[in-house]
Amino acid sequence: MRKVAILGIGQTKIDEQWDKSLREIGGEAAFAALQDAGTEKVDALFVGNMLSPIVNGQNQLGTFIADWIGFWHQEAVKIEAACGSGAAALRAGLMAVGSGEIDSALIVGIEKMTDKAGHDVTAALATAADADYEVEQGVSFVGLNALIMRRYMYEYGWKHADFAPFSINAHANAMHNPFARLHQKINVDQFEKSSMVATPINLLDASPTGDGAAAVVLVPAERVASIRGRPRVIIAGSGAATDTIAVHSRTDPLFLQAAYDSSKRSYDMAGVRPEDIDVFELHDAFSIMSALSLEACGFAERGQGVRLGLGNEIGPKGRVPICTRGGLKARGHPVGATGMYQIVEIVQQLRGECGATQVDGAKIGMVQNIGGSGATILTHILKSD
Amino acid sequence: MRKVAILGIGQTKIDEQWDKSLREIGGEAAFAALQDAGTEKVDALFVGNMLSPIVNGQNQLGTFIADWIGFWHQEAVKIEAACGSGAAALRAGLMAVGSGEIDSALIVGIEKMTDKAGHDVTAALATAADADYEVEQGVSFVGLNALIMRRYMYEYGWKHADFAPFSINAHANAMHNPFARLHQKINVDQFEKSSMVATPINLLDASPTGDGAAAVVLVPAERVASIRGRPRVIIAGSGAATDTIAVHSRTDPLFLQAAYDSSKRSYDMAGVRPEDIDVFELHDAFSIMSALSLEACGFAERGQGVRLGLGNEIGPKGRVPICTRGGLKARGHPVGATGMYQIVEIVQQLRGECGATQVDGAKIGMVQNIGGSGATILTHILKSD
Repeated sequence: MRKVAILGIGQTKIDEQWDKSLREIGGEAAFAALQDAGTEKVDALFVGNMLSPIVNGQNQLGTFIADWIGFWHQEAVKIEAACGSGAAALRAGLMAVGSGEIDSALIVGIEKMTDKAGHDVTAALATAADADYEVEQGVSFVGLNALIMRRYMYEYGWKHADFAPFSINAHANAMHNPFARLHQKINVDQFEKSSMVATPINLLDASPTGDGAAAVVLVPAERVASIRGRPRVIIAGSGAATDTIAVHSRTDPLFLQAAYDSSKRSYDMAGVRPEDIDVFELHDAFSIMSALSLEACGFAERGQGVRLGLGNEIGPKGRVPICTRGGLKARGHPVGATGMYQIVEIVQQLRGECGATQVDGAKIGMVQNIGGSGATILTHILKSD
Repeated sequence: MRKVAILGIGQTKIDEQWDKSLREIGGEAAFAALQDAGTEKVDALFVGNMLSPIVNGQNQLGTFIADWIGFWHQEAVKIEAACGSGAAALRAGLMAVGSGEIDSALIVGIEKMTDKAGHDVTAALATAADADYEVEQGVSFVGLNALIMRRYMYEYGWKHADFAPFSINAHANAMHNPFARLHQKINVDQFEKSSMVATPINLLDASPTGDGAAAVVLVPAERVASIRGRPRVIIAGSGAATDTIAVHSRTDPLFLQAAYDSSKRSYDMAGVRPEDIDVFELHDAFSIMSALSLEACGFAERGQGVRLGLGNEIGPKGRVPICTRGGLKARGHPVGATGMYQIVEIVQQLRGECGATQVDGAKIGMVQNIGGSGATILTHILKSD
């Protein structure tokens, strides 16, 4: 497969976007990425989305967005892997451009979640779990993550406050990201006193949903020199893996096997190891997921992921900077769009455009996007040269 | 992109499968294809599906099926392009194997539509149209096709009975396909007296939905010699294109621009012309679609597609054999699975396994799968050697 570069990026602010339709949000991110890439046309469009059939009554989202941005005649398709849809769309586009079958692609991750009431969205999100064996029992998606977090605390002896640094770091970093949904610093006391959602997950353990879209333009790396003085960003590693869809089917529900598998594939492809990663955008849908992701990807021993937060190692100046633009926790989690926000943010880091949360000299960034409770996981490694 | 071959095929009977769950139907087709290919494992799974989030309450269908068939660790993803989801999954898998990033893929098209009541499924199918500008006005998917058929009849002076040969041919061919939903010959009189659905489309102009799955195994062509005495089948051409999602946005709603564009790309890639095609599985969701597809792909002049039916040219022994296994009309149309049924059927033709509806000496077959009212169209050309 030939090497592929990211030529342009675009994103919208994550919010309750009552004044914009689904297609307008997608168009905003798409046009921003095309403009950033200095191009008007690409060969194909890959759209990552999870909920539009249920929440927006719209299927065929590839063609839907292609039509809106004037890409008549072009190829377009939608990719879905629950909350991992964004990265799954990127990987499909990567293989398409990498194969030589097409020469350029626009990848858009998009979700508009506020068109339905909260309880309807909770039910829609539960379609990421196993309908027959989990949802049928009445467990919600946050409920599944709460069961995992409770077991982790029991197994390794951590208390709830030990997870606070993950959320505090995310909220602090989001203060400097104009596209983030939440701009509000928090402290341990607020973290501990926040409203309970599903014990032990409270409101400040959980990421907010929202409406938003993020996009990139992919082209063969050989066609790109340094672009207008910016470093070139290439996709050096890409790995995808699955686990059982139901959490109860796993031998060990506290190990993200698909995070291990997909990160290993990505490390091998990029020829790097965990210690080479300068910045890591992980999938902190719930604070427990930050710990499990750090452990499965080789940044911490089993059961010790929270120690990185407690030891001040996860900030932009720390040893393993995560969620540098706010993460899912504070940037927000428009589910099918999230994976593409993560990619856009790592490109910003590798270009040195992150201001107060810039990781000094960042050259190698990793991104991990998760669908379901660890069921579908994609890990990408980007490099600047 | 390296050449890719189809190593194995599998399918389930299309029916109201009350005794089987969504995952069981997918597993049945997947295991059949793996067995036919003589392999137990592949690198990745691509699932084409349209309605499972709405009708079955299940998202993340790639991982869902991978889990059920024991493909833990493997990569899996779902592709959606409305009723074109099956072929869209094939094309994603083709580019993945073609790129060299993976070495084998299982492609499954699947739909279980009878889990919900008929009016709910009608509403679900309408998500293929434009939610804001078509569905909001109360038009159903069959209603949109009825508007197109009425205009076609007005514009070119055809009467309703002129479309009968399409449905009669499909029903006659399905008699010899054990996987077909309908086994019932029909005549012109029955065609004309059938119950009206949306004027001028009556029940025998429209394809029946159903539950079903069809699958293929893809591998690099260079790894396959003649398999157990069967001819090798390669994907010689693949093209995808889009049109506006709303029918009213098109300059000419009677020309399938995306069928023209995608077939041209596929012809060019395969190095063939319409007259080289021995057999053509087209997307006869409604009889009008057969006429429009034949015209856009170069088999008939504008407005003259019905003439091929009237002139007895579309049967298995005719000049342009179509729907040789029953087509959408009589084999059935489990929407997200249909594109993969079409692929499986062309492989059967190229292997010479079609018995009474075998096209003599078939070496080059074409397949066209349509999402929405001509909005997303994929055309593949398969060759045996």
